[in-house]
Amino acid sequence: MADSPNCDLKSLSPLQLFERVTEQGEKVRALKAGKAPKDEIDAAVRMLLSLKLSYKTTTGQDYQAGLPPKDLVLINNGTTKEEDEDLVDPWNVQTSNAKGVDYDKLIVRFGSSKIDTDLINRIERATGQKPHHFLRRGIFFSHRDMDQVLDAYENKKPFYLYTGRGPSSQAMHVGHLIPFMFTKWLQEVFDVPLVIQLTDDEKYLWKDMTVEKAYEYARENAKDIIACGFDVNKTFIFSDLDYLGTSAGFYKNIVKVQKHVTFNQVKGIFGFTDSDCIGKISFPAIQAAPSFSSSFPQIFNGKENIQCLIPCAIDQDPYFRMTRDVAPRIGQPKPALLHSVFFPALQGAQTKMSASDPNSSIFLTDTPKQIKTKINKHAFSGGRDTIEEHRKYGGNCDVDVSFMYLTFFLEDDDRLEQLKQAYTSGELLTGELKKVLIETMQPLVAAHQERRKQVTDEIVKQFMTPRKLAFEF
Amino acid sequence: MADSPNCDLKSLSPLQLFERVTEQGEKVRALKAGKAPKDEIDAAVRMLLSLKLSYKTTTGQDYQAGLPPKDLVLINNGTTKEEDEDLVDPWNVQTSNAKGVDYDKLIVRFGSSKIDTDLINRIERATGQKPHHFLRRGIFFSHRDMDQVLDAYENKKPFYLYTGRGPSSQAMHVGHLIPFMFTKWLQEVFDVPLVIQLTDDEKYLWKDMTVEKAYEYARENAKDIIACGFDVNKTFIFSDLDYLGTSAGFYKNIVKVQKHVTFNQVKGIFGFTDSDCIGKISFPAIQAAPSFSSSFPQIFNGKENIQCLIPCAIDQDPYFRMTRDVAPRIGQPKPALLHSVFFPALQGAQTKMSASDPNSSIFLTDTPKQIKTKINKHAFSGGRDTIEEHRKYGGNCDVDVSFMYLTFFLEDDDRLEQLKQAYTSGELLTGELKKVLIETMQPLVAAHQERRKQVTDEIVKQFMTPRKLAFEF
Repeated sequence: MADSPNCDLKSLSPLQLFERVTEQGEKVRALKAGKAPKDEIDAAVRMLLSLKLSYKTTTGQDYQAGLPPKDLVLINNGTTKEEDEDLVDPWNVQTSNAKGVDYDKLIVRFGSSKIDTDLINRIERATGQKPHHFLRRGIFFSHRDMDQVLDAYENKKPFYLYTGRGPSSQAMHVGHLIPFMFTKWLQEVFDVPLVIQLTDDEKYLWKDMTVEKAYEYARENAKDIIACGFDVNKTFIFSDLDYLGTSAGFYKNIVKVQKHVTFNQVKGIFGFTDSDCIGKISFPAIQAAPSFSSSFPQIFNGKENIQCLIPCAIDQDPYFRMTRDVAPRIGQPKPALLHSVFFPALQGAQTKMSASDPNSSIFLTDTPKQIKTKINKHAFSGGRDTIEEHRKYGGNCDVDVSFMYLTFFLEDDDRLEQLKQAYTSGELLTGELKKVLIETMQPLVAAHQERRKQVTDEIVKQFMTPRKLAFEF
Repeated sequence: MADSPNCDLKSLSPLQLFERVTEQGEKVRALKAGKAPKDEIDAAVRMLLSLKLSYKTTTGQDYQAGLPPKDLVLINNGTTKEEDEDLVDPWNVQTSNAKGVDYDKLIVRFGSSKIDTDLINRIERATGQKPHHFLRRGIFFSHRDMDQVLDAYENKKPFYLYTGRGPSSQAMHVGHLIPFMFTKWLQEVFDVPLVIQLTDDEKYLWKDMTVEKAYEYARENAKDIIACGFDVNKTFIFSDLDYLGTSAGFYKNIVKVQKHVTFNQVKGIFGFTDSDCIGKISFPAIQAAPSFSSSFPQIFNGKENIQCLIPCAIDQDPYFRMTRDVAPRIGQPKPALLHSVFFPALQGAQTKMSASDPNSSIFLTDTPKQIKTKINKHAFSGGRDTIEEHRKYGGNCDVDVSFMYLTFFLEDDDRLEQLKQAYTSGELLTGELKKVLIETMQPLVAAHQERRKQVTDEIVKQFMTPRKLAFEF
C-alpha cells in the first residue's frame, strides 16, 4: 500500500478508509510503545492526521475508533445506539414506538434510498404490470440501485433475484412469507432466474442445534417456500450445507469475499467479539457470495457479472452493505436491494415476530380455530376501551395489529381503505375488524397448507438440485 | 453453560478453561463498566477467581490474559517468545543456533512425545519392515498418539494417512519432498488410504495471488507429489478450492470445527489480529477437517471415526493441536501425528528453506550443473578455513549443510557413517563431501524430473477425482 495518504485514497471506500485510519492508529501506538525514534513517530502521526482528514472529506464524519462509517454501522448491543434510535440488526429489532420502527430514519441511517412514487411508476412502465400491493403500500419501502436494475432491464440486459431464509425451526409464520410472496411477483413480472439460500450453516453456528437438524429444517422450510408457487424451471433453492459441497463456483466467491473483509470490519458491522466462534466471524461471506452470478455456474453458464437484485427485510441489509463494499474489489457488480419493513408480532409492532413464541404470530401450521383464537386473544388493538368511546373517537389504525396484518394480506385496495375509514371513524368495532382479519387469514393459511401438502420430497429434490434453469446465458 | 465453576470444569480442556476465564474476565469488566449492583459484581469476581484456580490446577500455570495454556501456545511475532527460544509457527522458523532448532526443547514446549527407540522398534515389529531412515536418523523425531495408531493397527482396525502442502509457487525444492517420501513409505508398509490436501485457498488468502493462480500451482505441485510414486488406487489428492465444491462431507466438518473454535483461540494459537481478514481467521478449520474421515465419504463409505495419522513438519503442529482440542467435542477421534524436523537452507540450519529464494535450496527443476554450482557455492560448510587446519582438527558435521542433506537423502547407513567419521577426523575435505552430495542429488533430482514428465494432466485428474479407493470400509 502506498505510503502517501493522498495519492490513491480517493479510490477507497469509506470502510477501506476507516480501516486505513485504524491501522495507522495501531502503528502509531506500536511505535510509541516500542520507543521508536522521534522522527519515525512524527511521520506516522502526520500520516494518521492526513488519513483522518481524508476520512472526514469522504464521509463527512469525524473518525471515531471502533465506529465504522455511519452508512456501514449496524447498531449493536445497544452500545453505540443513540437514545431514541431503533435497534435493527440481523438478530434484533427493537423499538419503543407502537407504530413500529421509524423507517424514514432507518433509510437515512443506513444510507439507502426511499422507494418513491417515481420508482413505483417506473417499475409499472417497465413491466407493464400493476405494482404489487407491497410496493403500493410501502411494505417494500427502501432500495439500493433499483434504478440501475431497471436501466439494465430496459436495455434487455439480464439480472437475477436472490433471497433467502435462516431455517431456525420447522415452524414458519405468515410474516416469513412476505419476502417470498414479493419475490415471486418480481420473478413473474420480470421473468428472471431466482436463487433462494437456506442458511442452515448459520443456524447450526448460532443455535444449539446439530448439523443434521439444521439441514432437516432447511428442507422443511423449502416446502413452505415452494408452496408459495415458485416455478421449478426458474428457481433454484439451496441449503448451504448441501450446495457448498456441490458447486465449483460458490466456495471460490466465498473465499474471495473472506479475503477482502477483516475482523475489524465484521466487528463494526455485526458486533462480533473475540469470544465468537470463527464460524460466525466468517459467515457473512457465505451470505454475500450468492450475490455474484459465478456462484451458480450451472445457471449462468459460468458467466460472471450478471446483475443481482435482492428482496429482503431491512434487517438483512448489513450483510449486503458489506457485500457491496467488497464487490468492486473482487471485480463483481454490486447487488441491488429492495428492503421490506418488519412484520409485526400480534402483540404489537414494537418487535419482530419470533418463530419461538407460538402466540407471537399466525403460523403456517395453525388450524382455522387457532387462527381465530390467536387473533381474538392476542392481536393488539388500536380501538378504544369502551364501545361508547370507540364510536365517539374511533380506532387508531397506526397501532392496530389487525389492520397492519390486513395491509399485508388483503389485496383489495378499496376494501382496505373502507375498513380504515370505518375503523378510524368508530363505525367499525375492534371485534369486527378482527373478524375481517380472521376471514382473510383462515383461507390464506388453509390454501397454503393445501399447496404444501402437494410438495413431495421429490419436488423438493428437484428445486434443490443444481441445474440449468429455463434461461439462456 | 453451568454457573457453578466446579461442577463440570474437570471435563474441560485447558483451552476451554482458558476461554472460560477470559469470558468471565470480560463479564466482570462489563459489569464494572456498566455500574452493575455490587453483589452482582462480587459474585462475578468470585466466579472469576474460582475459574482461575481451576485453570491453575489443570494446567499448572497461572492464567495470563491473552496467553493461552502453554502446550497450545505458538510463539508469534516474537512478542511472547522467551529470549533464547526458537521461533516456530506455520509461517516462521527462526533460530540463532547453527545446528538448527532445538527439537528436544520444542517437544517439551509443544507437549508432544519423542519418537524413541522403543517406538521405532514397535513400528518395525508391527510392519515387519526395516524402519525408514527418516525414523532411524531422527528426521521424524516427535509424535502424538502413534502408539494408539499401532494398537489399532495390531487389532486390525483401519486408519488413514493425511498430509498436505500449501502450493505457494510452481517451484518445489527437495525439502518439500520429505513429508511425501515418508508418507509414501508409511502407506506402503501399513497399506492404508492416503489423502493429500493442497491448500490453494490458504495461499490465495495469504499471498498476493488470484484464485486461478493458486489453483494452477496446486495442480502443478500435484505433479511433483505424484512423481514421488504414489499409488493412484490408494491416494486421493485434492485442492481445497476444488474439493470443497464437490464433497458432501468436507464442508460439514469445516463448519463443525468453526463452531467450536473462537477468535480468542486462533489469536492465541496463530497470532491473528483484528486487522486480519476473516478468511485467514477461519482457515484453520479447513486444514483441520481432513483429519476426520467423514470429510471423505467416497473413500470411507460414509464411515466416521476412522483414525487419522498425519505426517508433517513440526511447524504444522498448531493446526493439529487445535484439531485435537476440538475433536472430542464434535464426537471425532483425535488425529495422531508424526513430526519432522525442518529441512535446512543451503546457507545453514538457522532458517527453513524458502521457495522464493532460488539459491536457498536445490529445486526439483534444477539441472545437474545448477545443482553442482549451488552446492559448491552456497552449501554452508562445517570444514576448517585451511586444508592444514581441516586435516588437523576435522570438520563439524553438526553444522555442515552438505552432511545434513546427506542425512536426508543418502539411504546407505554405513556409507553415511563412514563419511561422518572421515569428515570429523579431517580425512575427508569439504570439497570431497560436497562432491558426494552432488553425486547423490543429481541422479535423485534427474530421476524425479523423469518421473514427473510421465505425470500427464490425465493422471493428475485421476488422482484429484473424488472416488472410492482400493480399500473396503
